[in-house]
Amino acid sequence: MFESAEIGHKLDKETYRQAVPGLRSALLDAQYDLKENGKIPVIVLVSGQDGAGKGETINILYEWMDPRYLSTLAFSEPTDEERDRPVMWRYWRALPPKGRTGIFAGSWYSDSIRQRIEDSLSLTDLDARIDQINRFEAMLVNEGALVLKFWFHLTKDAQKKRLKALEKDPRTAWRVTPWSWERLKSYDKLQEVAGHILRMTNTAWAPWIIVEGSDDRYRSLTAGSVLLDALKQRLATGDTQDTPVAPLVHTQIDGRNVLAALDLKKKLSDKDYDEQLGHWQGRLSELARDPRFKQRSLICAFEGADAAGKGGAIRRIAGALDARQYQIVPVAAPTEEERAQPYLWRFWRHVPRHGRVAIFDRTWYGRVLVERVEGFCSERDWLRAYSEINDFEHELAEAGAIVVKFWLQVSQEEQLKRFKEREKIEFKRFKITEEDWRNREKWDAYQQAVCDLVDRTSTSTAPWTLVESNDKNFARIKILQTVCERLEAELAGKPAAKSKKRKAADGK
Amino acid sequence: MFESAEIGHKLDKETYRQAVPGLRSALLDAQYDLKENGKIPVIVLVSGQDGAGKGETINILYEWMDPRYLSTLAFSEPTDEERDRPVMWRYWRALPPKGRTGIFAGSWYSDSIRQRIEDSLSLTDLDARIDQINRFEAMLVNEGALVLKFWFHLTKDAQKKRLKALEKDPRTAWRVTPWSWERLKSYDKLQEVAGHILRMTNTAWAPWIIVEGSDDRYRSLTAGSVLLDALKQRLATGDTQDTPVAPLVHTQIDGRNVLAALDLKKKLSDKDYDEQLGHWQGRLSELARDPRFKQRSLICAFEGADAAGKGGAIRRIAGALDARQYQIVPVAAPTEEERAQPYLWRFWRHVPRHGRVAIFDRTWYGRVLVERVEGFCSERDWLRAYSEINDFEHELAEAGAIVVKFWLQVSQEEQLKRFKEREKIEFKRFKITEEDWRNREKWDAYQQAVCDLVDRTSTSTAPWTLVESNDKNFARIKILQTVCERLEAELAGKPAAKSKKRKAADGK
Repeated sequence: MFESAEIGHKLDKETYRQAVPGLRSALLDAQYDLKENGKIPVIVLVSGQDGAGKGETINILYEWMDPRYLSTLAFSEPTDEERDRPVMWRYWRALPPKGRTGIFAGSWYSDSIRQRIEDSLSLTDLDARIDQINRFEAMLVNEGALVLKFWFHLTKDAQKKRLKALEKDPRTAWRVTPWSWERLKSYDKLQEVAGHILRMTNTAWAPWIIVEGSDDRYRSLTAGSVLLDALKQRLATGDTQDTPVAPLVHTQIDGRNVLAALDLKKKLSDKDYDEQLGHWQGRLSELARDPRFKQRSLICAFEGADAAGKGGAIRRIAGALDARQYQIVPVAAPTEEERAQPYLWRFWRHVPRHGRVAIFDRTWYGRVLVERVEGFCSERDWLRAYSEINDFEHELAEAGAIVVKFWLQVSQEEQLKRFKEREKIEFKRFKITEEDWRNREKWDAYQQAVCDLVDRTSTSTAPWTLVESNDKNFARIKILQTVCERLEAELAGKPAAKSKKRKAADGK
Repeated sequence: MFESAEIGHKLDKETYRQAVPGLRSALLDAQYDLKENGKIPVIVLVSGQDGAGKGETINILYEWMDPRYLSTLAFSEPTDEERDRPVMWRYWRALPPKGRTGIFAGSWYSDSIRQRIEDSLSLTDLDARIDQINRFEAMLVNEGALVLKFWFHLTKDAQKKRLKALEKDPRTAWRVTPWSWERLKSYDKLQEVAGHILRMTNTAWAPWIIVEGSDDRYRSLTAGSVLLDALKQRLATGDTQDTPVAPLVHTQIDGRNVLAALDLKKKLSDKDYDEQLGHWQGRLSELARDPRFKQRSLICAFEGADAAGKGGAIRRIAGALDARQYQIVPVAAPTEEERAQPYLWRFWRHVPRHGRVAIFDRTWYGRVLVERVEGFCSERDWLRAYSEINDFEHELAEAGAIVVKFWLQVSQEEQLKRFKEREKIEFKRFKITEEDWRNREKWDAYQQAVCDLVDRTSTSTAPWTLVESNDKNFARIKILQTVCERLEAELAGKPAAKSKKRKAADGK
């Protein structure tokens, strides 16, 4: 992997001097074309051996390019806001918008490499991380990003020499930390670990670029030229590096499906409703204040046809919580800053901290529902969304989030009844629009989309709950009960089945 | 202050029942008009006695209004990202965008009230806080915000009764914390402290609304009606509550000014430059790694005519720093999310943490430079900006930020020379646009604006340094030296004069 970066690449002063002006103006042109194009975020990872010129490369890129469209993203110890959320949250929040270039000093590789060198990460866990990284980068590339992963390499001797040279010059001595020397000692180990990780993440869509780091001129010119070529190529072809996606396969040839199988006649009397509402809201308020919840978070995701009763159900959950503890996130059209980011970015930004609750009124499933049915995105885009969403929810769960997802199902007749009622009650009129009537016409397409998303995204960590919602009383209680039981089971660290037993023992 | 909220306001069921539907639909209408209008952010502070219905009020507003355009902002202990920045940073980052309503559960008042009750805030410090709050709210209102400050009040007896009632009902018992009872004990103290603070912050532009909290129906209907009236009035008149601003007074009747007084002939030979560059960059890199800097941050603000050499100077600073430590913030046109916020919001979001450096390439002074000269904002807006900016920088300094501001002055002849050179060098061509030529025609207006901003915003905590920039060598060294000397003095906790002595003692 590192062989061709150990042959002593060098560049004489004259060649460098002659090449730089042309490179600079071409890089600037490419930057403006990139901005003009407005579709491609450029992500440059700067990694490698200490003393191999990572900092210098960043500085030279700042010198050569227009700093107005560059940003450096640096990562040291995670903050408490970051520690309370999935590992990848800090990288998501740092992603450059389309048309701009983000230089990552430190990245999603740094922790894995360090932990592996310190032997605090098992090979199995490393493999899982590598898998996660590959899928994350595939997502970025599919979303239009240009991902350039630089690894600046030095031989052991060159590293020793370079560290000494840096140390000698008072202007660069600070770049050499005790940790740098420590790293030299573990040079072989780093080579082994990095070699493994680089090999496993050397994907077709985001390959590594290994650059020999000992000669400043060679290194700078190489980094600049590679960046330029990649930018130009990407701008010229307009090709995104789509990873292949398999089409959907439908097995419901008998016309039966999970939605049709629901018994929409389920009901709850007002009296029973009032009683159970009190019970479950009380239970929920207790659970949300359970000390164990301080290390967890709750994410409730609501989807359903128009007028299925999402708002009412959400208010029943919110009503049991301290207003300071929850946030309702209504999902509307994305803002300009959101449109300049990968699809899931606008949901990542609302991921709650530990001890908090986020209730999404419509969700990231919009991609495989409205965007699919209305043709707002390409088939490729919504097809790959299933696994991207699974990854997202998996990362949430890994960080202690309890993800509860509801589909509220009403019959077409019930929906019509509610639409008509809404038109009569003045303060509910806002809830019904022309679009709602139009959506009704696509009823079957939506139903199919729901069946598909249940098949593809109901996982053990984040299962779907389908809610019979023709009766609002029944739906609200089922939702509250589901949330409570999931919370209870998760806080007890037990699967749902066991928690039921526990409840029985409590005499309930 | 609280008298009319102690007379036992009550509302019977029937009156309430009849009033609510109309109120709800009117509130919804107002919300849509607000969204349509797109100019007004609504900020609702929900504060008051424990048990006076703060949480219930938030819940009822969520029930009555469209939650898609509402958000609740809750504040508990500040996170480490917040602690490393000015106190007000957490509130700035939570401000609702124009057209939306943000409900603040806890606000910039909470800390002052609590600390004053605990006797950990002196009266003098409290007065300073109150002053800061009044100016912050004036800024919000001037920026078009509707600020509604609710205080829900209870008599001591009513509070006791209410806490008991809440405690009895299992669904609400959790709202009563040990701290609630603690608060009852300090009821008189709270009344005294809150009374004082409310009186002092009961401004014409953001008055307090005191609401008796004991009766649910009265409280809910009052809060809803007040909100509705305020929304309707604000939408109808379109009036912002501008606070008065005084016009500028010019004393330079002799035609002399700080810019004209600069000796633009100052020069530095290439040899001296190289030597001093090494010296000051080395010094800067040491200072940035000084352990004392871990509790401070550095903000460098660069302004200057086109081609004055901002970029080059910035790179000389950046070159001395670890790329992971600094962020260059180029100030371009605001994004959609930024346009939906008060003017300073987009600078607040880039305020660096402790131990970090932010370098602004053009700054918040755009308001009193380009926006003033080009007429991009009204005279009122840029006139009030001076004191808003002083407040901003004062808050930064209070939180440990070291703010260094540079104006790079070149002569018109030198600028012309540079423009022409830039047109020749291909990779510098991007730096010169039609606009640059146009700006030259407004030279005098810009010079006047600079003199005014120096007069009005060069403070002891954040002084301006005017840099003679016809010679790039001289300018860069003066800038580096200024940054180093400020840093040195600040880290030593000494004024700049003393630090010079110290340097002399060091034999430099």
